[in-house]
Amino acid sequence: MANPKNKKSSLTDAQRAEIDALRGATTPTRRATVPALEEILYEPLPVLDHGFVRVIDYMGDDAAVVQAARVSYGKGTKRVSEDRGLINYLMRHRHSTPFEMCEIKYHVKLPIFVARQWIRHRTANVNEYSARYSILDNEFYLPAPEQLAVQSVANRQGRGDVLDGKEAARVLDLLREDALRSYAHYEEMMNERSDGTVIDSARSGLARELARMNLTLGFYTQWYWKTDLHNLLHFLSLRADAHAQYEIRVYADAMLETAKRWVPLTYEAFEDHGLGGVRISAKGMVVVKKLIAGEAVTQEQSGMSKREWSELMAVLGRST
Amino acid sequence: MANPKNKKSSLTDAQRAEIDALRGATTPTRRATVPALEEILYEPLPVLDHGFVRVIDYMGDDAAVVQAARVSYGKGTKRVSEDRGLINYLMRHRHSTPFEMCEIKYHVKLPIFVARQWIRHRTANVNEYSARYSILDNEFYLPAPEQLAVQSVANRQGRGDVLDGKEAARVLDLLREDALRSYAHYEEMMNERSDGTVIDSARSGLARELARMNLTLGFYTQWYWKTDLHNLLHFLSLRADAHAQYEIRVYADAMLETAKRWVPLTYEAFEDHGLGGVRISAKGMVVVKKLIAGEAVTQEQSGMSKREWSELMAVLGRST
Amino acid sequence: MANPKNKKSSLTDAQRAEIDALRGATTPTRRATVPALEEILYEPLPVLDHGFVRVIDYMGDDAAVVQAARVSYGKGTKRVSEDRGLINYLMRHRHSTPFEMCEIKYHVKLPIFVARQWIRHRTANVNEYSARYSILDNEFYLPAPEQLAVQSVANRQGRGDVLDGKEAARVLDLLREDALRSYAHYEEMMNERSDGTVIDSARSGLARELARMNLTLGFYTQWYWKTDLHNLLHFLSLRADAHAQYEIRVYADAMLETAKRWVPLTYEAFEDHGLGGVRISAKGMVVVKKLIAGEAVTQEQSGMSKREWSELMAVLGRST
Amino acid sequence: MANPKNKKSSLTDAQRAEIDALRGATTPTRRATVPALEEILYEPLPVLDHGFVRVIDYMGDDAAVVQAARVSYGKGTKRVSEDRGLINYLMRHRHSTPFEMCEIKYHVKLPIFVARQWIRHRTANVNEYSARYSILDNEFYLPAPEQLAVQSVANRQGRGDVLDGKEAARVLDLLREDALRSYAHYEEMMNERSDGTVIDSARSGLARELARMNLTLGFYTQWYWKTDLHNLLHFLSLRADAHAQYEIRVYADAMLETAKRWVPLTYEAFEDHGLGGVRISAKGMVVVKKLIAGEAVTQEQSGMSKREWSELMAVLGRST
Repeated sequence: MANPKNKKSSLTDAQRAEIDALRGATTPTRRATVPALEEILYEPLPVLDHGFVRVIDYMGDDAAVVQAARVSYGKGTKRVSEDRGLINYLMRHRHSTPFEMCEIKYHVKLPIFVARQWIRHRTANVNEYSARYSILDNEFYLPAPEQLAVQSVANRQGRGDVLDGKEAARVLDLLREDALRSYAHYEEMMNERSDGTVIDSARSGLARELARMNLTLGFYTQWYWKTDLHNLLHFLSLRADAHAQYEIRVYADAMLETAKRWVPLTYEAFEDHGLGGVRISAKGMVVVKKLIAGEAVTQEQSGMSKREWSELMAVLGRST
Repeated sequence: MANPKNKKSSLTDAQRAEIDALRGATTPTRRATVPALEEILYEPLPVLDHGFVRVIDYMGDDAAVVQAARVSYGKGTKRVSEDRGLINYLMRHRHSTPFEMCEIKYHVKLPIFVARQWIRHRTANVNEYSARYSILDNEFYLPAPEQLAVQSVANRQGRGDVLDGKEAARVLDLLREDALRSYAHYEEMMNERSDGTVIDSARSGLARELARMNLTLGFYTQWYWKTDLHNLLHFLSLRADAHAQYEIRVYADAMLETAKRWVPLTYEAFEDHGLGGVRISAKGMVVVKKLIAGEAVTQEQSGMSKREWSELMAVLGRST
Repeated sequence: MANPKNKKSSLTDAQRAEIDALRGATTPTRRATVPALEEILYEPLPVLDHGFVRVIDYMGDDAAVVQAARVSYGKGTKRVSEDRGLINYLMRHRHSTPFEMCEIKYHVKLPIFVARQWIRHRTANVNEYSARYSILDNEFYLPAPEQLAVQSVANRQGRGDVLDGKEAARVLDLLREDALRSYAHYEEMMNERSDGTVIDSARSGLARELARMNLTLGFYTQWYWKTDLHNLLHFLSLRADAHAQYEIRVYADAMLETAKRWVPLTYEAFEDHGLGGVRISAKGMVVVKKLIAGEAVTQEQSGMSKREWSELMAVLGRST
Repeated sequence: MANPKNKKSSLTDAQRAEIDALRGATTPTRRATVPALEEILYEPLPVLDHGFVRVIDYMGDDAAVVQAARVSYGKGTKRVSEDRGLINYLMRHRHSTPFEMCEIKYHVKLPIFVARQWIRHRTANVNEYSARYSILDNEFYLPAPEQLAVQSVANRQGRGDVLDGKEAARVLDLLREDALRSYAHYEEMMNERSDGTVIDSARSGLARELARMNLTLGFYTQWYWKTDLHNLLHFLSLRADAHAQYEIRVYADAMLETAKRWVPLTYEAFEDHGLGGVRISAKGMVVVKKLIAGEAVTQEQSGMSKREWSELMAVLGRST
């Protein structure tokens, strides 16, 4: 069978054993620890058909934010209600440096086209699996049928309705066949399989750094990705947003869960100010104040474009 | 014909006219200008089979480095020999901030697998053509036969000899056919061609952000890339290096020419200290001093690994 | 007289002549130019008692934002109304990379305590006048009497009422005398004056890098500071804000004027979304929607702290 | 007594107790831990007369570098000799991203003029004690007499011989008196002491954000400073260098000790390639090769300036 790993769990037995070994051992530390995060440490959280997010390491906790804000010699924390209030204050007034005092490191397996969006966030440390040195696995992303959306006409960026069954089936066939073929030819060009066996000892193999160009953007890559809490939340606010492409949003969603375990007070403030908050323009605030005062106001009066007006009405929960 | 643009010049007539219009107009400015760079401004410098590098804008010149080092109110420059000496001094003593005072902006067309290496340089501004919004052109990279190298055995990262004629022909056939097929299916899934015409008005088209995943990593993308002179030189020192993959090295080579036109004194210092300079370790310096003193020294005595020793001998131009 | 330059214009005749020389010369360029910004190029805009901001160089204009967003081969612009709409769209949807395609460079003279706040914005290039190499001028900041504010009790960060006349006079005397004395001792320790003359040829002089530690934080330093348009606007949104310290806000105010000349369409969008826009939390939006629906809502019901509630009421123009 | 804390240990009893509390508690963790670093965790390492460096937290170890380079699911390490070889290889070939996978956080107390040099390293997270909110302690740096160097004539940046006893005493008197006076006036202007007591209840106090400008650059500030291992080593290679100012070099020296405890294999490679390595220019390599070949070569023939030549001869351990 050509693609034996194309199933839900993409871990080999050896990988599973390595993870279990790490999870099985604990050592004492004087550092701040977060039991709720330790619980899932090293454990892959499945995303898409073969991807995952794993928390590999972390530094700091909610108290470290407070401690930094107070430049403390000791724990720096006070009562939970005071810490919660301080964290909320810091976040709503954009005092970002205390949140930079916590750090988290993930191991992520993701399709290359998702990796290309992700990498545009520059304030992070990245170490990617190298297809110059190594052979990529035969794993590629196939969307679930309910994700096969039609190109949106209202919104150039984004998706509309779902393709009907026959068209969806055709798309999945094309994606699957082209991926399988491109991988088979990748191996043929290198004259080597992903397990390192030579295909034909009478032939030479093309350099890996060249052969990889035959793979499609749906193939999975993996990397270690490390960032501070402030930049993690910035990443999540953009990528867990409804405008983000579904295939990166599901990674952001999985990471939101890890953030919630890691820094619950910060997460609470982030839900209020980051995820749930909205930015309203100066023109928008004029409209809001008029509406509160019970005055009528129209798009024409607002000075906004139609599109901007409808975005504001959506935010205010009003039909347009 | 399926791929009419698969020829040397990848510019359409409309693009050529737009470039000529920009090149035809000049306006007076009080800013520092560099005639040698203005000469090639906006002009695509061809790289690989369909790629290019174009200088789109620049800020500053050699004098701006000197002016910043002296925090001057005026030009800040003195005699050329003094400016040359100062620039050389700044570079060899790693005073990098004056070189950050110059900025350059490129428009680059490059294969996606090259873009994936390039983007790892984070201290730059990037705006890439979006395959979420737009349809990519049917242009992909096919290596010249003399670039079809065998995987190196001595050095896991890099290339060895060239494939023989028959094997090379087979590789090029695979790359071409898989690319053409993946593009044809890309259009079929979107139900739309790159010129915007609908293929079958009775069908819906898959969202562009999904269809793109069927393209291979050899397809060309393009971006605007802007960085400061210090970071440009850092990029070039890594990517014009013999260890860099050929397909990114040719971009670096083209950019070296633009840097030479732009900041000749800085370029001269960079040739000496950056491109041509070498770093020798503490252990290596012990060896160098012994060799100068006419003493014999062996790898075993040096405390170096065999590989490190042979790297040092190569740098010193000695056979091992 | 000990401090002859302690007057409004801090330019020497030689500096004035250098600036005039730069302003007097123009050369033709193929690059985008902005006449309204060229008008004030190199010219110091006075800030505080001896400081200034001067635009030294720039790259790009409003069209460069549009051109980057469209990854264009040519100008990339369309009708002004379309470009304005696109720029507004990019800004309100946080598409920041096109704004990174423009760059500006300032020469700034500012008190050291202001420089210490300013430098915390990391995404910029800086070259500061070195007090290791050179002797700082005898120029220090003395606040205008109306700026001598009492420590605020309501808000730990910030100012309250102004000191009364007698107390203000005492403060100004202390600041002036301590600054003058510290400078005189700075010269005495170095055994050298700022013009390079030796004070006592029979004595040695302390290293400049040590003597400088006797200067107070009110002394002026200067630097070249260069950043891209996106990060400039981020800086201005924080530093032109009412919560910023007055002494840095006046620099931000002067720079707002330069931005307005440079990129009028971007500035217009920034006034609406950046300077004039507000961020409202999820809890705040619940309140806003209730108020629009004509329902009463109290701080207790809102789940907000008293302070957060009063911040929201202020934003909505309601008394608390 | 005006300045009771002006003695070696700058910790108050309360601070000491807070540190002891943190050091006394351990919790189990699944993360990588480094016993040699845990040993000194939270403990201030004294620097200068009142400063310190304390490791507050860390993430990763030598194995994390190896693990990232291999993008491993598990520990990723092999035999120590192999890990050592890999780390050495990564460092000498400038593969910096694996070293970015470790992170360390310090609490540092340092004179303001040192902080101003330090902050120019931008790839770090910083949270400084705010003199807008809080009152700085009455602690300032007084150099030891053997550090009171004369301005160097050979080298504009740096120090020459030491001042003679009488001149040194005069300098120390000036520094001490000006610092004490500026602090006394700082308190007088705020009408408040550092312990929060009001001086004269009949007067108002100047805002802290203004009063601070009367302090000299020798006063101590403090911050939390966090960076990754790659950027830490870059910082140390510049600041532990002989050209760095003594007052920052002693901080770098203390941090070298912490790095040695934390990542011994990386530190070993850094000693060889970073601290002890030298960069030799293309022109310099021509000279080196000639010397090894036993040929005579002069500065004139080398194409180097006198200064560059003598730098090269110094590196080669030859008199000029």
